[in-house]
Amino acid sequence: MFNDATIPEIENAMQQAWKAFYIYRKCSLKQRADFMRAIARELEALGDELLKLTGEETNLPEARLRNERGRTIFQLNQYADACEKGDWLEARIDTAIPDKAPPKPDIRKMLMPLGPVVVFGAANFPFAYSTAGGDTATAFAAGCPVIVKAHPAHAGTSELVAKAILKAAADCEMPEGIFTHIHGASFDIGKALVEHIYTKAVGFTGSFIGGKQLFDWANQRKVPIPVFAEMSSINPVFLLPEKMKTDVVEMAKFYASSITLGVGQFCTNPGLIIGLEGKELTTFTETLGKEISKIAPGTMLHAGIFKNYRKKKDEALKQPGVEVVAFSETKPALNQGSPTIATVKGQTFLNNPLLHQEVFGPYSLIVCCKDMKEMLQVANHLEGQLTATLMATENDIRIHDKLVEAVKNICGRFILNSVPTGVEVCLGMQHGGPYPSTTDARFGSVGADAIKRFARPIAFQNWSNDLLPDELKNENPLSIWRTVNNELTKKSL
Amino acid sequence: MFNDATIPEIENAMQQAWKAFYIYRKCSLKQRADFMRAIARELEALGDELLKLTGEETNLPEARLRNERGRTIFQLNQYADACEKGDWLEARIDTAIPDKAPPKPDIRKMLMPLGPVVVFGAANFPFAYSTAGGDTATAFAAGCPVIVKAHPAHAGTSELVAKAILKAAADCEMPEGIFTHIHGASFDIGKALVEHIYTKAVGFTGSFIGGKQLFDWANQRKVPIPVFAEMSSINPVFLLPEKMKTDVVEMAKFYASSITLGVGQFCTNPGLIIGLEGKELTTFTETLGKEISKIAPGTMLHAGIFKNYRKKKDEALKQPGVEVVAFSETKPALNQGSPTIATVKGQTFLNNPLLHQEVFGPYSLIVCCKDMKEMLQVANHLEGQLTATLMATENDIRIHDKLVEAVKNICGRFILNSVPTGVEVCLGMQHGGPYPSTTDARFGSVGADAIKRFARPIAFQNWSNDLLPDELKNENPLSIWRTVNNELTKKSL
Repeated sequence: MFNDATIPEIENAMQQAWKAFYIYRKCSLKQRADFMRAIARELEALGDELLKLTGEETNLPEARLRNERGRTIFQLNQYADACEKGDWLEARIDTAIPDKAPPKPDIRKMLMPLGPVVVFGAANFPFAYSTAGGDTATAFAAGCPVIVKAHPAHAGTSELVAKAILKAAADCEMPEGIFTHIHGASFDIGKALVEHIYTKAVGFTGSFIGGKQLFDWANQRKVPIPVFAEMSSINPVFLLPEKMKTDVVEMAKFYASSITLGVGQFCTNPGLIIGLEGKELTTFTETLGKEISKIAPGTMLHAGIFKNYRKKKDEALKQPGVEVVAFSETKPALNQGSPTIATVKGQTFLNNPLLHQEVFGPYSLIVCCKDMKEMLQVANHLEGQLTATLMATENDIRIHDKLVEAVKNICGRFILNSVPTGVEVCLGMQHGGPYPSTTDARFGSVGADAIKRFARPIAFQNWSNDLLPDELKNENPLSIWRTVNNELTKKSL
Repeated sequence: MFNDATIPEIENAMQQAWKAFYIYRKCSLKQRADFMRAIARELEALGDELLKLTGEETNLPEARLRNERGRTIFQLNQYADACEKGDWLEARIDTAIPDKAPPKPDIRKMLMPLGPVVVFGAANFPFAYSTAGGDTATAFAAGCPVIVKAHPAHAGTSELVAKAILKAAADCEMPEGIFTHIHGASFDIGKALVEHIYTKAVGFTGSFIGGKQLFDWANQRKVPIPVFAEMSSINPVFLLPEKMKTDVVEMAKFYASSITLGVGQFCTNPGLIIGLEGKELTTFTETLGKEISKIAPGTMLHAGIFKNYRKKKDEALKQPGVEVVAFSETKPALNQGSPTIATVKGQTFLNNPLLHQEVFGPYSLIVCCKDMKEMLQVANHLEGQLTATLMATENDIRIHDKLVEAVKNICGRFILNSVPTGVEVCLGMQHGGPYPSTTDARFGSVGADAIKRFARPIAFQNWSNDLLPDELKNENPLSIWRTVNNELTKKSL
């Protein structure tokens, strides 16, 4: 067991982070990238000892953990490359026009880091969205020191990973305070971290209640700060009529595996499936039910998540008009989440906000609409989502334009004829959506654009070439893309 | 006089704006740009009638108004060009790798508009930051309908400009609801607009109290929305020792004109000048005082702003340790702001937060520090600013790196050897800084990057080429810059 950090410890960590900020932000892009790559290597070097401990702490199977560690290493390296490449800096140069009236000054802009970033580890991603995960990696790339609050459910894992980061920091001669690891099961630790004057941004992946609390604290500060909280999403899937005439059985099988992937503990788990009443939807529902009943329950991440799953699911199933379609035939053992599918009519769903809430686990609700008008109503009534999916033919899309546009409005990632689970780490990815799926739909937490969350523009007016940062010098010594007098170019001036 | 909008009128405006959002966002970049250019032409066509009315409403001289109208037209055209060019869309394409394990899907991302934007007209920029100003222009470029609440101090101007926008909208066959003009002197109108479910972002230029109120309302909504409020800034100027040995008299004269430009009613007015005790600072202060005493008071924008100037200035001058250096020798007439310079010691300034507050008008406070350590303390204690200026030689900058880095931390635009007044409209500009100068330092309100305030990324996964928006199609029919598999290019796939 680890002790909660004390307030003086937090104060000290923040003071150190603030000092480190002044040094680290002057490190070159290459130095930052090398530091990130060193973290990746140290993480790998933790070997099977790490996987074993994390397996014990999270109940996640070894194959998944091996994969997730690979992904975390991939992220660190990919974001390091992006950091060094510098596209994210949004470098802009407008050269002087002295004979304009009034004279136009030389003015050059780029992103600079915000300052120390507090990252809250995620329960469901002990590697990829925790201590050395996406938030930490992008904050380092942006030039920000990081303070991680370990998730109490995998505090040992977090401790090991933190040591790897600190080793990399020492090897790369990073300033003291570049990274601090803090334990804290109590509410007060989170509050103290978010409210500290030197905290300049917050990254969080978890429940709506947790994320909303951080957001409120951050906005009530004397100087508010941005909070990037990824909170809750039911990832609606719309089954369009022409598509349903094609491969409905295959579709149902595909979805059974998506719903139960990782015991449903993904933020992109499809928790809502919306179709039109009729024989196709009946076939879909029956097939999905049959598949689900064959899938064995799995042990969830920790007792709290399991209890929450059972409570939320029971609440949903108790609502008038909700009928269970199927659940796993295998009796669940301790802390095992049992895959479950239920169904409800469109109008009932529309009138009951509780059914719009996330049930975190292997559960999905099928909404049977009486017609396309009702399906459109459902789309218009849904809250903001990380993803939304259309199962549709080209014809469906062209005919049901209103529905397509309504769905576009509520999601960050718009998927066609696939499943929402599986979040590719690449620049084209958007993992973030309208509130309440995240607190800031203008940013995402996967892909190198996530670096921009932790930076802000600064313009240098009338500075001589020698005094400008390398990124903005005439010679373009870093060979980055810059917009010079409105044209994107790598050329020197 | 104009009547305040009623709640049903606001409801109707927002309903119309929401409907227009669905149509307008499907308009091509060229259609949006043409609409903006049409507004620019209609604004010009209002001719001298507009200037005359605005002069009566704001007390601003004709030459300034002519200039500001020119700038507003320039902004509309420049942002129209930027809109059409599409760099701001941040188009990203990652093509599928089917044989990767797991298979990588095709995923393509671009910015899409947030939805209806509410813009609050600014008192001090009746054209450039009001009805057809920067916020409106960038919202239109992003694809958002706009609802403008006229500033009551120039409601007639706003009404005329609104008619020009509506004429342009009709000529360009824009959907009904693309633009709505609302009058409202009461608090409740602003609240109803910010709290409306269909309002997706807010633009504001004005006082700290006003901006902070909008920010709080927006964050307390069930679904919080971004508020881009530009609020208050005292734009500190640091006089460095070696530079002070050069052209201190010229410098003082330069600053006398910057402090009094437009009766000091610019958000970038230099309200704080920080130097080191000694004969150079004495010369600077005396010269500045002599210049200021020769500058005649000017009529301020409206009685409220004048009263506020007098109240804030009197409060500041009453603080212990604050001494008046000089004020205009000319007796001010009704509602005329009298240029005033005062001085205070560094330690006194540090201990009195009231002296850090903006005094909106032709006023500046000279802070005399006993050494560079104290100057650094001042820099570290200052709140967030739109701009900060160094008057410094290259040597000064290299020697006083700690000061330079501390100042960098608190500003959005960092000026060397010039004055902060004068905000060039270009891509390299950053007009926005750490809180409380604006509510969101990650964005600015001048230059085409301001378009991004009103947009969010959406990723399309697994969509066929035909169904994708033109911006993301293989052929690149709009010939925009896109990042394809991590490389910026205009090539088709």
